[in-house]
Amino acid sequence: MSGSNSILPGFGCPVGFSDQQRIGIGHGGGGVLTRELFVKVFLPAFGNPVLERLGDAALLPPVEAGGRLAFSTDAYVVQPLFFPGGSIGDLAVNGTVNDLAMEGARAIALSAAFILEEGLSIDLLTEIAQAMGRAARDAGVEIVTGDTKVVERGRGDGCSITTAGIGVVPERSRLGATPIGPGDLILVSGSVGNHGMAVMSVREGLAFESPIVSDTQPLHRLVSDLLTACPETRLLRDPTRGGLAATLGEIAVGAGFGIELEEAAVPIEPAVAAACAILGLDPLEVASEGRFVAVVAAGDAQRGLAALRGHQVAGGYPAALAAQIGRVVAEHPGMVVARTAIGARRIVPMPLGELLPRIC
Amino acid sequence: MSGSNSILPGFGCPVGFSDQQRIGIGHGGGGVLTRELFVKVFLPAFGNPVLERLGDAALLPPVEAGGRLAFSTDAYVVQPLFFPGGSIGDLAVNGTVNDLAMEGARAIALSAAFILEEGLSIDLLTEIAQAMGRAARDAGVEIVTGDTKVVERGRGDGCSITTAGIGVVPERSRLGATPIGPGDLILVSGSVGNHGMAVMSVREGLAFESPIVSDTQPLHRLVSDLLTACPETRLLRDPTRGGLAATLGEIAVGAGFGIELEEAAVPIEPAVAAACAILGLDPLEVASEGRFVAVVAAGDAQRGLAALRGHQVAGGYPAALAAQIGRVVAEHPGMVVARTAIGARRIVPMPLGELLPRIC
Repeated sequence: MSGSNSILPGFGCPVGFSDQQRIGIGHGGGGVLTRELFVKVFLPAFGNPVLERLGDAALLPPVEAGGRLAFSTDAYVVQPLFFPGGSIGDLAVNGTVNDLAMEGARAIALSAAFILEEGLSIDLLTEIAQAMGRAARDAGVEIVTGDTKVVERGRGDGCSITTAGIGVVPERSRLGATPIGPGDLILVSGSVGNHGMAVMSVREGLAFESPIVSDTQPLHRLVSDLLTACPETRLLRDPTRGGLAATLGEIAVGAGFGIELEEAAVPIEPAVAAACAILGLDPLEVASEGRFVAVVAAGDAQRGLAALRGHQVAGGYPAALAAQIGRVVAEHPGMVVARTAIGARRIVPMPLGELLPRIC
Repeated sequence: MSGSNSILPGFGCPVGFSDQQRIGIGHGGGGVLTRELFVKVFLPAFGNPVLERLGDAALLPPVEAGGRLAFSTDAYVVQPLFFPGGSIGDLAVNGTVNDLAMEGARAIALSAAFILEEGLSIDLLTEIAQAMGRAARDAGVEIVTGDTKVVERGRGDGCSITTAGIGVVPERSRLGATPIGPGDLILVSGSVGNHGMAVMSVREGLAFESPIVSDTQPLHRLVSDLLTACPETRLLRDPTRGGLAATLGEIAVGAGFGIELEEAAVPIEPAVAAACAILGLDPLEVASEGRFVAVVAAGDAQRGLAALRGHQVAGGYPAALAAQIGRVVAEHPGMVVARTAIGARRIVPMPLGELLPRIC
């Protein structure tokens, strides 16, 4: 890269990236180096007029009248930073877009805060930032504000990213207006566990004929199609950490009813099932990052499934594996009970927590 | 603490905090342990109806008509986590409240994302969360959504926190409506450098007769008083990382004019000046966390100063040290030039960045 003086007039900056290919403590100091990182790495990746203004806070365009605001945040510490089908950058954008989508909201602005470890390659950071920019454009949202901090070597883990997002829930949204009740049906938007096993197969050095690819993707368009087909949808949740088991467990506890899961109906790709078997994991406990669970009125379920299956998800992954996987029952409140392929019944416990560390 | 089963009905959780006094990898897994941390640590500290709903995103009450939204985020990696006058928790809340205040916005909702290192004391985390809750209540805002991730021992640094905030700018706000021009005057709301030297004096083991106490505090009320007195205020900035030197440098570059700084007029407490002298630091480059710089119309400056001085800042710290410290000039565009106490002139360079790592 060329010298930095032309890009930072008035700062008389003596050190450019030409001299420094790795993150140093100074990049987090709020001075010339922090600004240079912003101008050379983040602005080209995220560039938009709101971010360029460079204020202490971003000022957003007016919100459509009548819409309610939704607000969400997630910290991302996935290792490795890149994996088949995505990177920490994709996860950080899609995860927050999807958390908003689970409330029926369309993301209107994202923030991104980076904690970088001294010694991180600036080229790697640039790749991550560019992945975030692409993911944001794909989701139709902009990263309008951010922050960068640097910690000493050995005090961090390369790059962790926290995103937050503001979304708008359309005034007409009836998501959640009717509470969950016995008889409601449970849909899942696609095969589960791909993300978790994509990360784990890299970490464990597993190789399959068809490699396992993360499902990370923005879900708001798919959600919008589902909500049009099923306006009385009770609840949406994305089965990330803890997988389907944690998500269904939380839904059962929150609703105060039981959930009956048809285990054979849960869509799981053969490679994911094989990897789980090798590693001794229950695929119901493995995270997805681009899937959601919907609790819908019984009468709407077929329309909902058709909408999900008819939607070619961004990134070219067909949602043809969307399935009806269970129902809400009055029995065993707060518990998920699976009917297995051979007709037996087993309790699906809430995962304790340590199954798959650092997958998002 | 008592067993956890009564708090987490339906989860059949076998492990309570009574058995586990430190953060483990499982606390970041999204299962029972993550939920237990939320229920026992964060909910009591932050408790409010929006957070209790526990959705993927928080749904906010409707925004006042006509107001524009502001959005900001900051990551906090300060070491040590507690210092005279505050903690990482206070900084994380006040910092985002203040970034919003710098745009004339009142914070209406905060998010908080934690990256915890395995082995962190849960008691310490509880203290931090309680400090955040108190700071949020003091600032009149609620923490409505959050996330917790855990990294392995040696891959993090105890506790880092990223907050994001949504603010509303009143429709009547004229902050920034008139651009900065020569003749505008520059005010600072109080003594500078206290926060940075409070943290550094702990790290360096410096002791003074009157200990240096961080200035961390919410600024929105003080900003509101200033904007009432000076409705044509051009710009507000808080001199955090990089201190007054970085803030004034950014203002000069952004405006395309020069800034003339009266060095003797900059309020610096004697203990801060002494600590800077011992450590060989320029107090102009040391961060504050509860101060702001205002660029105001020349005719408004006295009214603005009176408003700042008349305001007893939350926490009991009088703003009596508010001062007029310089002016905008047509000469030397993009540069800050200080007139020293003995009448000499020197360029105030933009700090490169590595002066004081990990102070916020």
